[in-house]
Amino acid sequence: MRILVTGGSGFIGRWVVEALRKKHADVFVCTRTPSRVTDVAGDLLQLDAPETLVAKVRPDIIVHAAWCVEPDRFWFTPANLDWGAVTLRLARVAAEMGVRRFVGIGTCFEYDWPIEGQCCEATTPIRPTTLYATTKDSVRRVIQEYAKGGGFEFAWARLFYLFGPYEHPKRLVASVASRLARNLPAPLSSGTAVRDFMDVRDAGAAVAALALSSVTGAVNIGSGEATKVIDLARQLQAIAGGTGQLQIGGWPDRAEEPARIVADVFRLRDEVGFKPAASLSERLQETFHWWQRQLTSELQL
Amino acid sequence: MRILVTGGSGFIGRWVVEALRKKHADVFVCTRTPSRVTDVAGDLLQLDAPETLVAKVRPDIIVHAAWCVEPDRFWFTPANLDWGAVTLRLARVAAEMGVRRFVGIGTCFEYDWPIEGQCCEATTPIRPTTLYATTKDSVRRVIQEYAKGGGFEFAWARLFYLFGPYEHPKRLVASVASRLARNLPAPLSSGTAVRDFMDVRDAGAAVAALALSSVTGAVNIGSGEATKVIDLARQLQAIAGGTGQLQIGGWPDRAEEPARIVADVFRLRDEVGFKPAASLSERLQETFHWWQRQLTSELQL
Repeated sequence: MRILVTGGSGFIGRWVVEALRKKHADVFVCTRTPSRVTDVAGDLLQLDAPETLVAKVRPDIIVHAAWCVEPDRFWFTPANLDWGAVTLRLARVAAEMGVRRFVGIGTCFEYDWPIEGQCCEATTPIRPTTLYATTKDSVRRVIQEYAKGGGFEFAWARLFYLFGPYEHPKRLVASVASRLARNLPAPLSSGTAVRDFMDVRDAGAAVAALALSSVTGAVNIGSGEATKVIDLARQLQAIAGGTGQLQIGGWPDRAEEPARIVADVFRLRDEVGFKPAASLSERLQETFHWWQRQLTSELQL
Repeated sequence: MRILVTGGSGFIGRWVVEALRKKHADVFVCTRTPSRVTDVAGDLLQLDAPETLVAKVRPDIIVHAAWCVEPDRFWFTPANLDWGAVTLRLARVAAEMGVRRFVGIGTCFEYDWPIEGQCCEATTPIRPTTLYATTKDSVRRVIQEYAKGGGFEFAWARLFYLFGPYEHPKRLVASVASRLARNLPAPLSSGTAVRDFMDVRDAGAAVAALALSSVTGAVNIGSGEATKVIDLARQLQAIAGGTGQLQIGGWPDRAEEPARIVADVFRLRDEVGFKPAASLSERLQETFHWWQRQLTSELQL
């Protein structure tokens, strides 16, 4: 089984790759910074990249995790159109060259989040409000319709709120954990929002499980648990030994941020058969210690 | 004012170009078969075509009429993905290179057709069911969201049922008119479906008017008139002198074809300010005579 992972050195991609390698799949990674024999050097946005890449690797399965991800900017950067275009071309080339299965990465921001309950793949309406989520949703619609014609299977992994190693330091868990590790005050919003948090290692393993399954269509990648932002921050504070200080309200609440985003994980759990390897609190501990180790290596430099 | 028309030698594109030239705009046509000085030779699907084309022409406005249109096949051909990808890239390049306005071509097949009344841009739900309409709708969503960021205007011309010169002979009006012109029996379905028919010359002029206006978003390009297929066929028969014979029921009714597809043309008429130059019956006469002339020139060869 040959599997090509685009964006395989990225935040989630690296853990998809690790989980697939544990299952003895031949994993090929498309990356701008190759470091292994099975890494294919290349920028997917180069003009003939999708064709060249698929012709070179001849994968059975593609997990397409590459996209523009620069924090804050990714919501509205015009690069979303480039990634939309290249995703359509990759899917087209995949089907043409006999790829059996194509897994794309979506986002919980495709949903019209319900005020109560969970986002369900089958019943929650779709209403993206950013260029990022609109483009993701649009390529999903096109490839899903395309896959109906037969020839290859298509699945769509909708990510919720991820945290973990290598998270961009501007994002919530990374910011709070790294500041508490340094004994600095950690600002956050009012913290009343409820989110579905999942460690990126579990999310990567979940996407890998989806890739190796025969489940098609959209599948939420989340924990299914509703966690208040402030409770998550307090867990991190407790892990840090209670020494660091949370600055609740230190960041403004954003008007466009909904009160609640939680995944219905029935499909992931019962159809894909995936369960995360550790609990949220265990993963928060590991993540805090990872940030602590980053600090130690910085100090040693 | 420099205007670039892709697909400018196609069924509708040629009339968009003619209407724009009448308004003294500098019109540049991207076509695989160039015949004028202002024609830019090229296949838009070539890898660097959007970038090269826009850099060469430096248009103020782009009317993007190119897409795969092979009858029957276009609904589900994988080429839709290529056209989706190239459309996103063209829009992206356009905005980057200072194009002021971008007009794409959509279809009434994007709508969830109401059983009664008309398809309205603002209120009729969108529910495409073919790869063609899904891809059209998807690129529309992405570019519309992109245009919100400022930088350029975006309009989307949703075509209804077009007929006229150079129509593919497999399509309804072309088939009936050309067969009646030859004194051959003309098969059609039961003819009970109600459609919004518009001459392609008027539709081209409507798209040109939209391109030269500042109206944004989706705009139906249709007549607003509900015409039964059988009544249209009978009009053609009367124009033909009543000599030809209609074979009603000679073609099967397609289960997936809805009973009624009619455009609400408020936006086109009142916002764009467009009115067709001739009535449906005048246009049917002209079209019949065009097919008659085709026959005459064939006989003279």
